[in-house]
Amino acid sequence: MSKKLLPNKQEYPAEWYTKVMQLADLADYGPAKGSMIFKPYGYAIWEQMQNAMDRLIKAKGVQNAYFPLLIPMSLIKKEASHIKGFAPELAVVTHGGGEKLEEPLAIRPTSEAIMYNSYAKWIESWRDLPIMMNQWNNVVRWEKRTLPFLRTSEFLWQEGHTAHSNHQEAIEIQEWAMQMYAQIFREWLALDGFEGWKSQSERFAGADTTMSYEALMPSGKALQSATSHDLGRNFSKTFDIKFQDKTGSESFVWQTSWGLSTRSIGGLIMAHGDDNGLRLPPKLAPVQVVIVPVLPKPAILDHCRKLLAQLKKAGVRSMIDDRDNETFGYKLNKWEVKGVPLIFKIGARETREKNITVKRRFDGEEQTLLADNIKEGVSKILDKIQDSMLEASRQYLAAETREAHDYHEFKEIVKKDKGFIKVWWNDDVEIEAKIKAETKAASCCQPLSWGKGQGKDFFTGEPASYQWIFAQSY
Amino acid sequence: MSKKLLPNKQEYPAEWYTKVMQLADLADYGPAKGSMIFKPYGYAIWEQMQNAMDRLIKAKGVQNAYFPLLIPMSLIKKEASHIKGFAPELAVVTHGGGEKLEEPLAIRPTSEAIMYNSYAKWIESWRDLPIMMNQWNNVVRWEKRTLPFLRTSEFLWQEGHTAHSNHQEAIEIQEWAMQMYAQIFREWLALDGFEGWKSQSERFAGADTTMSYEALMPSGKALQSATSHDLGRNFSKTFDIKFQDKTGSESFVWQTSWGLSTRSIGGLIMAHGDDNGLRLPPKLAPVQVVIVPVLPKPAILDHCRKLLAQLKKAGVRSMIDDRDNETFGYKLNKWEVKGVPLIFKIGARETREKNITVKRRFDGEEQTLLADNIKEGVSKILDKIQDSMLEASRQYLAAETREAHDYHEFKEIVKKDKGFIKVWWNDDVEIEAKIKAETKAASCCQPLSWGKGQGKDFFTGEPASYQWIFAQSY
Repeated sequence: MSKKLLPNKQEYPAEWYTKVMQLADLADYGPAKGSMIFKPYGYAIWEQMQNAMDRLIKAKGVQNAYFPLLIPMSLIKKEASHIKGFAPELAVVTHGGGEKLEEPLAIRPTSEAIMYNSYAKWIESWRDLPIMMNQWNNVVRWEKRTLPFLRTSEFLWQEGHTAHSNHQEAIEIQEWAMQMYAQIFREWLALDGFEGWKSQSERFAGADTTMSYEALMPSGKALQSATSHDLGRNFSKTFDIKFQDKTGSESFVWQTSWGLSTRSIGGLIMAHGDDNGLRLPPKLAPVQVVIVPVLPKPAILDHCRKLLAQLKKAGVRSMIDDRDNETFGYKLNKWEVKGVPLIFKIGARETREKNITVKRRFDGEEQTLLADNIKEGVSKILDKIQDSMLEASRQYLAAETREAHDYHEFKEIVKKDKGFIKVWWNDDVEIEAKIKAETKAASCCQPLSWGKGQGKDFFTGEPASYQWIFAQSY
Repeated sequence: MSKKLLPNKQEYPAEWYTKVMQLADLADYGPAKGSMIFKPYGYAIWEQMQNAMDRLIKAKGVQNAYFPLLIPMSLIKKEASHIKGFAPELAVVTHGGGEKLEEPLAIRPTSEAIMYNSYAKWIESWRDLPIMMNQWNNVVRWEKRTLPFLRTSEFLWQEGHTAHSNHQEAIEIQEWAMQMYAQIFREWLALDGFEGWKSQSERFAGADTTMSYEALMPSGKALQSATSHDLGRNFSKTFDIKFQDKTGSESFVWQTSWGLSTRSIGGLIMAHGDDNGLRLPPKLAPVQVVIVPVLPKPAILDHCRKLLAQLKKAGVRSMIDDRDNETFGYKLNKWEVKGVPLIFKIGARETREKNITVKRRFDGEEQTLLADNIKEGVSKILDKIQDSMLEASRQYLAAETREAHDYHEFKEIVKKDKGFIKVWWNDDVEIEAKIKAETKAASCCQPLSWGKGQGKDFFTGEPASYQWIFAQSY
């Protein structure tokens, strides 16, 4: 595998993305338009993310459940703004068992409608609340232009759906979910970003408020990577989800929903990859260490196997590449393209001296590790790489977030630099539509970390209390 | 929760099944006909099974992947006997994104067609083999008569799909998969059964041979609980999956597929439940121990919390039920219905004497455990229960397997006793069809454990080499 197979990432980002997908064996195109196949290496990244999130979700007391894939059209049409948002993206089943169905069924684009129909049946009193459920499933949204992981007609995700007796508790869950996602993005994906509130026009169809995590890709475009919604009582009023409170009177429940999808893997690939291929953060890498013998000599292979046994014992995801039909150099390139954090290069010298030449994928540097010190040594290097990747992402985010004081400056940045644009702004639907039409940039979120202040609206010049980030988005 | 809510299991098995589903909070009906909702308690049983199987599947070197839900009709129609088997059960998407699709898409009833279409692209030489992939996903098969878990229009399962350079290796995987399933059924579900070969007419659509695991339900009917197929080269010839062998010549690959679904949970419920509700085997129980304080006194609650901490530390899935709006008696019934293996009844005496009154769900008996001995004590009791449940299942299977020497005896057993009927038989499609039409009983499998022998075909009286089990089936 030659490095030349990969086009320059900066110059040809689209070609690079498609090619790395194929060379790193992450994914392939499915036979139906817009569909993709998660190959084992790509799916294993998702499994690592699932494990991390599933633990955090369960620790919060949210329970996993599973609701049907197919939703009667009458049900999904109940909440007016919800169906308005999703109608153009629905895949519809009209025939089943060789017969035309009496009522067509939509493949779930998200599960609010079907879940809340049941919540209405299950909830009677305040004692039944909160209900906090999560699903790991597949959803279908018909997309015209598709790209593996980033935008596909079917994707995998988790969707959390909670119902509460009061608004405050719902907001607490909405914010907890976003903090959980921010933790996953920073600590696992090593992707810094902004978490904050969505503008009125960018909210989820049916939500009172939406929070999102916005990461910045090397193209200078934003990627919305997870969302968390305060649904208020919009769905509970539509689906008649009432509970009797402690005084005996009836009220509608307050609800949230929140999701993170396989789209984030697309962000992971784009953000960390370089001209030599993927670079996977150690915490998510399906293979953290690959041991490559320089020559297939018995003594060397024996040393490799002992090292592997020690790595496995230490809980490091590791393997030996002892294929006999590839050269040492070819193997190094192959594992580099696949973004494995550490390559152990084991030759006669390493075998004789009982040590390891460790090549780090992150910075391409090599270091020597004593075989006796493998457990602590590897764990320290992997932690260091994980930290360095996040630090690099932090620096990139800081460098590529530019402030615009007026619309003229704003347009200059969009034209020249792209990236995130920081502005004081009074969220306004018509103004946002105008900006979007003129610059293709829209608001990403009003970051939580910036709090309230006093500034001047970059578009109108009027006083404004909050700062927002804008960008062109995927 | 009163025990009287549950109908007698033996007298009213259908009512009992539906009622226990609801009272134990396992599942609910979905809004579309034939669909079901896995509520958290029911889904948690599936998660336990997934964990156990996923470990065994990965240990064999099979990798998880994910293929699209929607399969172009032209693709699924390629393999003639495959589509013949599945055509009557397909759900078909005809519209996407508001437009009529050029080609309708089938929701996967199983993934042979879509996976092998890719296998053909991915496989070039013997070095690419074996390919061994597994998916955890949802499939849709349109069913006329449905029952939660047992037969629903959508179900969850795993489907393994492998491709090999030779037949022997494929058969080895087919047999390994069935052994893995048998291990899951006996060791985790505590459900004894027969694993063996399916008759010609009961094989999977597109397979050369099919193996199945057949468990016996209390109704005397069999439940086919997992299958494993030798697909021979039927699909590889249709989908043109060729490889270059070591000599440079091209051949078609040999394939297997194998699956186990959430249907098995239906079997688990029926087989182990009794008039008081579910009885879950400790290994699969989402909650293994529930601690119920007799009174909500501080000292008692404190003792309960200390016990819970010790149980959690020992890795026992456990919780305290300290709800203040239910009586002690109500709680006992509730957890009994939910089939939790052990209830800790903690009152003033237990708190004073630092011990635990343990009620076993399996046999309804109580025993005392010293609080100091909780870790070893609980683990020993849970192991014992797991073993006892399997032993009870073994005895039931042995008692309900009756031998028939001729068709007359066979019909008498079907009429009088039901259960498994053991016969010498020469697998014959026409004869099986005749038997099925007359008795509603069909062959389940030719059990592996019985080997070859010499007998007399129960139907024709001719010499026969193998013994089969027949039964009426779900």
